[in-house]
Amino acid sequence: MTRLSRQSPRKSPLSAKDLDAVNAYWRAANYLSVGQIYLLDNPLMRRPLSLDDVKPRLLGHWGTTPGLNFIYAHMNRVIKARDLDAIYVAGPGHGGPGVLANVYLEGTYSEIYPGIGQDEDGMRKLFRQFSFPGGVPSHVAPETPGSIHEGGELGYSLAHAYGAAFDNPDLLVCAVVGDGEAETGPLAASWHSNKFVNPVRDGTVLPILHLNGYKIANPTVLSRIPQAELEQLMRGYGYEPFTVVSEEGADPLEAHQAMAATLDAMLDRIADIRTRALTGRDNGERPAWPMLILRTPKGWTGPKTVDGKRTEDSWRSHQVPMANVHTNPAHLKVLEEWMRSYRPEELFDPAGALMPELAALAPSGLRRMGANPHANGGVLLRDLKMPDFRDYAVEPAGHGVEHAESTKILGTFLRDIMSDNSGADNFRVFGPDETASNRLQALFEATGRMWNAETVPWDDEHLALDGRVLEPLSEHMCQGWLEGYLLTGRHGFFSCYEAFIHIVDSMFNQHAKWLKTTRHIPWRAPIASLNYLLTSHVWRQDHNGFSHQDPGFIDHVVNKKADVIRVYLPPDANTLLSVADHCLRSRDYVNVIVAGKQPQLQYLSMEEAIVHCTRGIGIWEWASSDGDGEPDLVMGCAGDVPTMETLAAVDILRQNFPDLKVRVVNVVDLMRLQGSDEHPHGLSDKEFDALFTTAKPVVFTYHGYPWLIHRLTYRRTNHGNLHVRGYKEEGTTTTPFDMAMLNDIDRYHLAIDAIDRVPGLAERAGHLRQQLLDARLKARQYTREFGEDDPAISGWAWPY
Amino acid sequence: MTRLSRQSPRKSPLSAKDLDAVNAYWRAANYLSVGQIYLLDNPLMRRPLSLDDVKPRLLGHWGTTPGLNFIYAHMNRVIKARDLDAIYVAGPGHGGPGVLANVYLEGTYSEIYPGIGQDEDGMRKLFRQFSFPGGVPSHVAPETPGSIHEGGELGYSLAHAYGAAFDNPDLLVCAVVGDGEAETGPLAASWHSNKFVNPVRDGTVLPILHLNGYKIANPTVLSRIPQAELEQLMRGYGYEPFTVVSEEGADPLEAHQAMAATLDAMLDRIADIRTRALTGRDNGERPAWPMLILRTPKGWTGPKTVDGKRTEDSWRSHQVPMANVHTNPAHLKVLEEWMRSYRPEELFDPAGALMPELAALAPSGLRRMGANPHANGGVLLRDLKMPDFRDYAVEPAGHGVEHAESTKILGTFLRDIMSDNSGADNFRVFGPDETASNRLQALFEATGRMWNAETVPWDDEHLALDGRVLEPLSEHMCQGWLEGYLLTGRHGFFSCYEAFIHIVDSMFNQHAKWLKTTRHIPWRAPIASLNYLLTSHVWRQDHNGFSHQDPGFIDHVVNKKADVIRVYLPPDANTLLSVADHCLRSRDYVNVIVAGKQPQLQYLSMEEAIVHCTRGIGIWEWASSDGDGEPDLVMGCAGDVPTMETLAAVDILRQNFPDLKVRVVNVVDLMRLQGSDEHPHGLSDKEFDALFTTAKPVVFTYHGYPWLIHRLTYRRTNHGNLHVRGYKEEGTTTTPFDMAMLNDIDRYHLAIDAIDRVPGLAERAGHLRQQLLDARLKARQYTREFGEDDPAISGWAWPY
Repeated sequence: MTRLSRQSPRKSPLSAKDLDAVNAYWRAANYLSVGQIYLLDNPLMRRPLSLDDVKPRLLGHWGTTPGLNFIYAHMNRVIKARDLDAIYVAGPGHGGPGVLANVYLEGTYSEIYPGIGQDEDGMRKLFRQFSFPGGVPSHVAPETPGSIHEGGELGYSLAHAYGAAFDNPDLLVCAVVGDGEAETGPLAASWHSNKFVNPVRDGTVLPILHLNGYKIANPTVLSRIPQAELEQLMRGYGYEPFTVVSEEGADPLEAHQAMAATLDAMLDRIADIRTRALTGRDNGERPAWPMLILRTPKGWTGPKTVDGKRTEDSWRSHQVPMANVHTNPAHLKVLEEWMRSYRPEELFDPAGALMPELAALAPSGLRRMGANPHANGGVLLRDLKMPDFRDYAVEPAGHGVEHAESTKILGTFLRDIMSDNSGADNFRVFGPDETASNRLQALFEATGRMWNAETVPWDDEHLALDGRVLEPLSEHMCQGWLEGYLLTGRHGFFSCYEAFIHIVDSMFNQHAKWLKTTRHIPWRAPIASLNYLLTSHVWRQDHNGFSHQDPGFIDHVVNKKADVIRVYLPPDANTLLSVADHCLRSRDYVNVIVAGKQPQLQYLSMEEAIVHCTRGIGIWEWASSDGDGEPDLVMGCAGDVPTMETLAAVDILRQNFPDLKVRVVNVVDLMRLQGSDEHPHGLSDKEFDALFTTAKPVVFTYHGYPWLIHRLTYRRTNHGNLHVRGYKEEGTTTTPFDMAMLNDIDRYHLAIDAIDRVPGLAERAGHLRQQLLDARLKARQYTREFGEDDPAISGWAWPY
Repeated sequence: MTRLSRQSPRKSPLSAKDLDAVNAYWRAANYLSVGQIYLLDNPLMRRPLSLDDVKPRLLGHWGTTPGLNFIYAHMNRVIKARDLDAIYVAGPGHGGPGVLANVYLEGTYSEIYPGIGQDEDGMRKLFRQFSFPGGVPSHVAPETPGSIHEGGELGYSLAHAYGAAFDNPDLLVCAVVGDGEAETGPLAASWHSNKFVNPVRDGTVLPILHLNGYKIANPTVLSRIPQAELEQLMRGYGYEPFTVVSEEGADPLEAHQAMAATLDAMLDRIADIRTRALTGRDNGERPAWPMLILRTPKGWTGPKTVDGKRTEDSWRSHQVPMANVHTNPAHLKVLEEWMRSYRPEELFDPAGALMPELAALAPSGLRRMGANPHANGGVLLRDLKMPDFRDYAVEPAGHGVEHAESTKILGTFLRDIMSDNSGADNFRVFGPDETASNRLQALFEATGRMWNAETVPWDDEHLALDGRVLEPLSEHMCQGWLEGYLLTGRHGFFSCYEAFIHIVDSMFNQHAKWLKTTRHIPWRAPIASLNYLLTSHVWRQDHNGFSHQDPGFIDHVVNKKADVIRVYLPPDANTLLSVADHCLRSRDYVNVIVAGKQPQLQYLSMEEAIVHCTRGIGIWEWASSDGDGEPDLVMGCAGDVPTMETLAAVDILRQNFPDLKVRVVNVVDLMRLQGSDEHPHGLSDKEFDALFTTAKPVVFTYHGYPWLIHRLTYRRTNHGNLHVRGYKEEGTTTTPFDMAMLNDIDRYHLAIDAIDRVPGLAERAGHLRQQLLDARLKARQYTREFGEDDPAISGWAWPY
């Protein structure tokens, strides 16, 4: 039987003719979906299917597809009826054939890919290309018009949908959540996104929890708890649940009526919520947005049984219901009957075009979900208005003598970007409850923390219904929202504790893959880069311990395509400002900026910082003693704490060996270290050799795991003389200098490294080597006794 | 006011004396907590506090601590009253001072760390060591007795708790979930763990959602939704919510009565559930386990205001309520008043020992939560009974001529391990709905899929109330449960699609850090290793696309301490069996096994496989043509698909250059490539040189990102001649051989690589080079035309 949601006011909103039409449209989408999975040829089934018509490898996911098609058809109806501006996020993105079928039926696909026309030949190509070498992927993918969501890795549909809806008050995002996906952590958390939505300023997310009962080989949890319990869960998440059920064997026509009636009721409810909010009648209270529980059989309309085993409404429909078509004639027969059950001859004209009365059911132009510009956000992207970052400069009295909190200064820049773009409503800052902790609190002079849950009279945390800083304690939600926001043509900034950005390693992967793929899709307009600020980093986890110490995200990032990723390690405030300005103007990259939040030495004037950041790597002549000649030693550094320790080591060396020619090379743009044939930012070997010499010892101190520097430089001429120090997974709750010593990046150890490597220096050093070891011991004893670093160490400044 | 849960039968279960006592115990824990954060000396406050008594750096987290102490005190009461076997999982592990205070009060701490006695001197050391260089971390950590949960990275407490409870029917796991943590994805999903628990076989998790209202600088979502909505959420998650509220300003004595009454009611309810289940009166239906919503002010009992700003019941209590004690005399005064408000003179005797009547409140011996052996699971660990893995061998007719599904064969081994240990109840297999997909389905001959949600008559997926395969579609839950299971002294195996194991990158980090730390904690007994099988790997994502192609977890893993991590790439079934046997017997490692699930060539007899796996790396003499002499060329390989393509390339080379001396080196144990000074498994340079020569060209084909091989070998003599092929982030839905070609690891390209690198070979090759390029083109054309690989390629076998 088919059950209708209690809340629905009208049981049968569709006339007999409309009902037939929407069902026919759905049949057409289902037919095209099965065709994509199975057929090479004979797309209109003008002749009986033969084995030659069938693909040799049957690859794809049928199970979720008819449900996706069902929802798409009904969304088309309400878009037309209400002139909605809507996009479609297919959480079960495995159901690629369904979304492809629909964007093909509505005409978008043929407009973008003229080779795949709306005729028999086009249909043949549509079928053939699917999951086929040289064709299109099996999932909803960047190549798929209308999509901002890949859906191969499950868990992020709802967060993407909310990100798309933010600051798009007229947009409706239909977010289909599969019941498999619903078991993931990120999805389970992102239902709570509704506490961060303002019904006046933001668009609407219409979540559809599509329960088809099974994942790959198991039932799903949410399909196997009582309906009442599930409704409590959804009410507990703050939604008003509606329900449509079509059980196995029920007449789909009843399901269409139920779906139409329920969608109408939900959209009426949404309109009411929005009206109440716009007129202030809601008193700013958080509404219970409607969501739909849609229960339909997995593999709906597919073979009921195959080889005597339940297939429709079973996990056996997950991928290809019959995979042995080539060896089992009975399977070929089942396939033929299945495809003919959609009666293609009623759906497509003899030339292969969708019947006009069916084609008329789809919206037109940009109202088609496949053509909606929000789903190709780059076309809507406007540049940020950027204040001049030079206006935020610190002007240190000298090189390395004054302290400042670099991220705090960045906060003032971000504040004014926020202010300057407040009319455009296209910039947001995300962080897992860390914006203030990461010293970006100046932002709160320009905007608040978005909050639509309860408040209390003594709240003083800048909570605001119109805030553009978003701070759920979930890196997954920050990342998912930001991706959705960027993909729909806006700008953003994500600040995060360095160690915990690993929580979204896999989400980063998928976004980087999306960007890599769109490089080759001409109709996808470039989007704003995804900008990370990783702070509260490994060297300064003063309040926290070992769990908070991990600089490995950089290693993870550089595994992705070189033309997509960028990594910056600005050592002070002015370089940070310059880098941030560059990143916020860039397109289609993932930019990773690593910078500390604690008071730190400031090295460069703004003029120097701009030159240094433009080069990305360079000799700090003011710190070097090699004049114009070849140095005896190169001291390289990347990262703020490594830079300070390197300079302090150089200070020791220069004091003890006044004639030693030391060159200090600082790296801001990490990818400069790689070869120019491997990364667009890479130095040529000649440039690299000019900085690091071809034969002199190099002591390089790096913010993260030291082997990354070797991995980036192993082909360089002088790699054999490169000695790298960095984090080697030694940590705990201790003082900053003790952390440096635990990992041998402290000034004393670096000076010893230099002494041990410059020919002849060890002999000249006399007792110095032992004195440096003693100094380490003394420094450790000081911290053990007094619980802080020796002020003579922590207060060190560049003395020249 | 303090509100009592409706469900509670008795309002005031505590006598006046008991009430005073439990409150005094709580005061003592709070006093010790504040002392740890602030004091160097004067632990009993025998004299007024002076600045010399106060730590120079004030580091720690006060806000959550009094709540943790409150729960701990009440758990002590019910453990004693009911003789419970209970452990404590502190989700807000930041509240380290609280758990440390409690294990100190109950005597466990001084037993394990005799230097910290239960006297004034011990208390002084207890205070001083906290967050102090050379002391203990600020969080609950491996060093903390009674803990299986670090708590620095939030999100995993509930999953850890359930993992601990599995197969421990008499264990009660008190799992405190902070309301910050509750916003994370993994935590939001893991409430559903109750669908995977059997009340007869498994223990009980008692979740306490501790709402103190704030995270670092924001209110929390769950504390700011209506109580009724929150209760719906918990009912929707399948729990029966109980509630205890102590609002700001309420008398804590009322809270004690409410907590005692409610805990009694909940434990009665748990006892009832268990009795009904044990007697079969529940008809096997999933019970609604009780959970507690505990609302108390953040920083409870701390300063109400500091500098006129609300502090108790505010985010300002999150870390250190007054951080300027050293510069602000008023702050020192507040601290003194605060600490004296606990009236330490009533709590500790003049020698500094807890008053005997208070000490008597704690359980004794192993019933103390700090001393419970389940929280030091290694002491309970029993070896698995292991069938002889050689009994599962495939015996191929030759080297590389027959195909088999290696993971399917592994499944038969795992099946019998499951059977052989069914009495011990100490082995479980975890996978995100992928056990069958990963071809381990033989397991279901020995056990079922654990499932306590609804079933339907046609279920045929081996769902079982006593299953030991766990398959939620959540890598986070699999990992969290497995960690909890291992940490409490059992064994497990986690199979996962290779790409999506990145979802738990950060959880792996924390577990590896835990293991690294426990290396230096003598009282922590070794636990079973965490074993990953990564399959459905990058080269064989036949149904899926680019999103499913990522071999980078290995890169992530090798950043952790060498003595904790192991990586294996067995190329066939027998090597996989040998490796799996080794891993399942090992202790305190993270073992990563990468092996494909598709039919693949089988190379080694079991005897050969054992020898090869024991060495971890070796020359395949049957495939080599270098005799006993120095080869002209070394062809290295690691991973199943690289091994096949390498051998096929060697076949091409040997056919065309019969006199060419080719050596084939296969790597099973990846860490053999690293130096012996860097990894315990590393080859010495001499051994490495013996395999890879010191000057001959090496073409090395690797399963993952090629630069990892450079990173592992850059110090080796012959590194300059090492040419590595691997996955370079080119992928889509295509055929296996097309994937190989996209990334240049195909046999033709490898043969060209060899021709280009062996001196003189290019000249001798004549047209061969072009023929190989043509063969690539032809292979691509074949897949484009027929949608599958040319059978001449996919059917290749070793011809010698």
